[in-house]
Amino acid sequence: MNRLANYLPILDWGRRYSRATLTNDMVAAVIVTIMLIPQSLAYAMLAGLPAEIGLYASILPLVAYAAFGTSRTLAVGPVAVVSLMTASAIGEIAAQGTPAYLAAAMLLAFLSGAMLIAMGAFRLGFVANFLSHPVISGFITASGLLIAAGQLKYVLGIEAGGHTLPQIVRGLAASIGSVNLPTLGLGASVLAFLYFVRMRLKRVLVALGLSARLADIATKAGPVAAVAATILAVPAFNLDARGVVLVGAIPQGLPVPTLPAFDLALIRILAVPALLISLIGFVESVSVAQTLAAKRRQRIVPDQELIGLGAANIASAVSSGYPVTGGFARSVVNFDAGAETPAAGIYTAIGIALATLFLTPLLANLPQATLAATIIVAVLSLVNIAVIRRVWTYSKVDFSAMAATILGTLFFGVETGVVMGVVLSLLLHLHRTSRPHMAVVGQMPGTEHFRNVDRHQVETSPHILSVRVDESLYFANARYLEDRIAALIAERPELKHVVLMCSAVNMIDASALESLDEINHRLKDAGITLHLSEVKGPVMDRLKRSHFLEDLTGEVFLSQYGAMCRLGPPAT
Amino acid sequence: MNRLANYLPILDWGRRYSRATLTNDMVAAVIVTIMLIPQSLAYAMLAGLPAEIGLYASILPLVAYAAFGTSRTLAVGPVAVVSLMTASAIGEIAAQGTPAYLAAAMLLAFLSGAMLIAMGAFRLGFVANFLSHPVISGFITASGLLIAAGQLKYVLGIEAGGHTLPQIVRGLAASIGSVNLPTLGLGASVLAFLYFVRMRLKRVLVALGLSARLADIATKAGPVAAVAATILAVPAFNLDARGVVLVGAIPQGLPVPTLPAFDLALIRILAVPALLISLIGFVESVSVAQTLAAKRRQRIVPDQELIGLGAANIASAVSSGYPVTGGFARSVVNFDAGAETPAAGIYTAIGIALATLFLTPLLANLPQATLAATIIVAVLSLVNIAVIRRVWTYSKVDFSAMAATILGTLFFGVETGVVMGVVLSLLLHLHRTSRPHMAVVGQMPGTEHFRNVDRHQVETSPHILSVRVDESLYFANARYLEDRIAALIAERPELKHVVLMCSAVNMIDASALESLDEINHRLKDAGITLHLSEVKGPVMDRLKRSHFLEDLTGEVFLSQYGAMCRLGPPAT
Repeated sequence: MNRLANYLPILDWGRRYSRATLTNDMVAAVIVTIMLIPQSLAYAMLAGLPAEIGLYASILPLVAYAAFGTSRTLAVGPVAVVSLMTASAIGEIAAQGTPAYLAAAMLLAFLSGAMLIAMGAFRLGFVANFLSHPVISGFITASGLLIAAGQLKYVLGIEAGGHTLPQIVRGLAASIGSVNLPTLGLGASVLAFLYFVRMRLKRVLVALGLSARLADIATKAGPVAAVAATILAVPAFNLDARGVVLVGAIPQGLPVPTLPAFDLALIRILAVPALLISLIGFVESVSVAQTLAAKRRQRIVPDQELIGLGAANIASAVSSGYPVTGGFARSVVNFDAGAETPAAGIYTAIGIALATLFLTPLLANLPQATLAATIIVAVLSLVNIAVIRRVWTYSKVDFSAMAATILGTLFFGVETGVVMGVVLSLLLHLHRTSRPHMAVVGQMPGTEHFRNVDRHQVETSPHILSVRVDESLYFANARYLEDRIAALIAERPELKHVVLMCSAVNMIDASALESLDEINHRLKDAGITLHLSEVKGPVMDRLKRSHFLEDLTGEVFLSQYGAMCRLGPPAT
Repeated sequence: MNRLANYLPILDWGRRYSRATLTNDMVAAVIVTIMLIPQSLAYAMLAGLPAEIGLYASILPLVAYAAFGTSRTLAVGPVAVVSLMTASAIGEIAAQGTPAYLAAAMLLAFLSGAMLIAMGAFRLGFVANFLSHPVISGFITASGLLIAAGQLKYVLGIEAGGHTLPQIVRGLAASIGSVNLPTLGLGASVLAFLYFVRMRLKRVLVALGLSARLADIATKAGPVAAVAATILAVPAFNLDARGVVLVGAIPQGLPVPTLPAFDLALIRILAVPALLISLIGFVESVSVAQTLAAKRRQRIVPDQELIGLGAANIASAVSSGYPVTGGFARSVVNFDAGAETPAAGIYTAIGIALATLFLTPLLANLPQATLAATIIVAVLSLVNIAVIRRVWTYSKVDFSAMAATILGTLFFGVETGVVMGVVLSLLLHLHRTSRPHMAVVGQMPGTEHFRNVDRHQVETSPHILSVRVDESLYFANARYLEDRIAALIAERPELKHVVLMCSAVNMIDASALESLDEINHRLKDAGITLHLSEVKGPVMDRLKRSHFLEDLTGEVFLSQYGAMCRLGPPAT
């Protein structure tokens, strides 16, 4: 029973569900639903999909996550970055508005879901560690800029396209002459309103005497107000006839469950984008979930989260949706509004389902410019210059991985950007650990301590070279060790003993073992004896499984001091 | 002057060249030349190229390496594994025997040379560290098997092809009916002879009273004897008419210097194979060079080696050659025969040039089966089962990377095999360091030492959690740290302080800093204070460049003992 609950967390919290929890979850669900309706429509537009697809992706996935996810408060659904990645992945394959485009989006969600579940089942969540913080935040910032730039065409009322910054700028520049002024007026007004709501409204409301929590909730309803106001403005000012593009008729009713079409050629094309979407979505979602869980001393289980998000994506795929993940803003709203269990997600799903059934006729008059403005204001919070500056100050190495990600994303597209960042950060990491700090050490006078000869006044002997390696020995630095030892002995003609001090070596892999073997043989050929000192227990256990200790010309000493006592006192 | 000599080592050893050195170098050169002639012809055949190309690749490249390389005794030229990789890279592009095939081989050598020089100039030699010892030795073993299997067709006198083991086996099986018996008889005799020479001759000669060194040199001349004997056998037994395929007429004369044709589309196809050839060639060559240098307490400079090998490959490209690198067997022969400076390589080049001018007419009657037998006996020494067994015993993780390389190479070809091995070993390494050893520690009674609570009888307090992390903190384990801390605090409701003991943390990158920041904030939200202890100097210097120390809710203690004294004595 307990074991099953590990894989189906709903069995755990569902058994202890009380009336008080029900009330709290319901309140949170109502607030999240109000926030989610315009977001769903807007992000579907961003993904190049019809508006209703955003709503579909906000129903079943929430239920699936509620059953399988481990976060109590994560709110799943369409999010900006994943929508952008969807548009980028499918944009080359099919034309927007065609059935093939939607079919590809469903397939993408299915692949992403299957990959997430597989990673969860095989405990491969660590693959997400490839994405370092600088790469992720660089990618999110660049995506925010790309999304904002891409939405400008809707605010200007012009036709343009492109998946990279140069393409988008070129597209906008080419059509800038045909700006539709009523659209621009409407779009700019909504932008200004939403910006005011985001930056000032809360303070104004608090000053007017509202409680901080209510003021906060009112702020989150800003986009809904903009949607309602502009829907009413369209017939009032006859904006439709003046060239303002509307969302248009949205099919009323719930999505019909259906499997995506499995086209092998298409699967091959979508595999890499699906993997990147899965990883980025997972990393973002887990970090939100973990932050919220910690506030209530709850726990999330990353491997089970993979299964929860995977189930959500499969659910999205079979209900005509597209890739989803945990959203930052809406999860925080859900948490702040008092949600206690994933049941809040189920109630939100019911809310969205009701909206899909009854509110969609009202949305036909919604201007696209309103949605675009919603997106722009939302994604500008993704652009985080402070982080960029912080990373620059802290580490130039990390900064270069971040810069590569940002420039790659802006100029070559989202997939190339992420891959460039990941590859560069791996290369830089390998480079960093491939040249570990190594110090020639000598004895501090009057003590049993051995320190770096370059930093301290120490005693050494011309016949004995003691070297401390400050890193685990593995394939990336095995050859460097050989080079350094070779260089050190070439400088010292009188040398008779080399002692490797292994106090900071946590692991020796097969490559490093071969290198030690090689060093041992080379030193032997040169008439020098190799010794080890201060080898840790687990490392020693492993060495005993090899022939190295038998072949070693010298000894393994428990301490560096013991080695020096045996090999001869230092000549001062 | 001294600086220039770093880049042109010939300026260093050339100035001190004496008559005694000249004699030693000349003797070594003669022996290596005798060994190199059949090898050059055989490896060219293995690469799918006309026999003379092997000779061409053994002239100018040796001179170029002598000028730029840092090893005193490395013998450069065509080698088995690189020849196999060349055949695999070009096999899909052009048909053997066509001018396009040769042009592609020259271009491949040029690209490989340019990449090696670029890596040397930008000090990117560390990229070779991607190739762990298990991957390299797995690859060499699998290549040896592939090469031997691929040469069987010449010994059997049948037509067959293929670049992977299944292809080769299928090809042999299809034509096994048309075996040419005279060819098989000749091939089997040469195989038996060479095998005897390799395994027994030295002992027999020593027993007959020869010095060990002379016996050794005689052993190396085995292939030359086989070549001479079978050339004479062809007219004697009229083998040509009986269906024994001969090398045929070899153009007499030196190669005409010429640039390879630079075809952009071809460059794009050959770029990845050229990179792999460069890296494999470099790793093999450097390890030979280093082993030999150490025996005389000399030094090689890996970055300059890249330039030396790069120059050799460019030289090969402009003299109608194909990719070359330092060969293991011939370098050992060169060393043992007493070569003292790279001038021995120049004399060898002169020897091969003379052979190309005057001996080539004699080679027309050389049976291909002889060369194939030479190759088979030579490459079987590459197959190293002992290493496979050793890695299996030592580490299952390393073994799995090796097994992937071997199976990938045999079943999908050389490029796929290497790439599979490299990717898997990187993934496994990241996986290993992404879950570092972390111990909850407590105070050993009566001491200031803190040890793992699971292994020792220690004193702890329910309000204080002390955790020791046994690894540098970087992006691959940053999130794991968050998860572990979250899990640890979720189990301890009474917790007020967390102390991270950083004695084994050599580095904290920007990702880990973000994670520490996040942990700090989450603990703060949960009413817990975070402290650090025993932070190393360089790590502390870097932390001071960030806001972390200002935001930290707790303190940084010099020692874990100091932290416990301040936060309250342990409740026993």
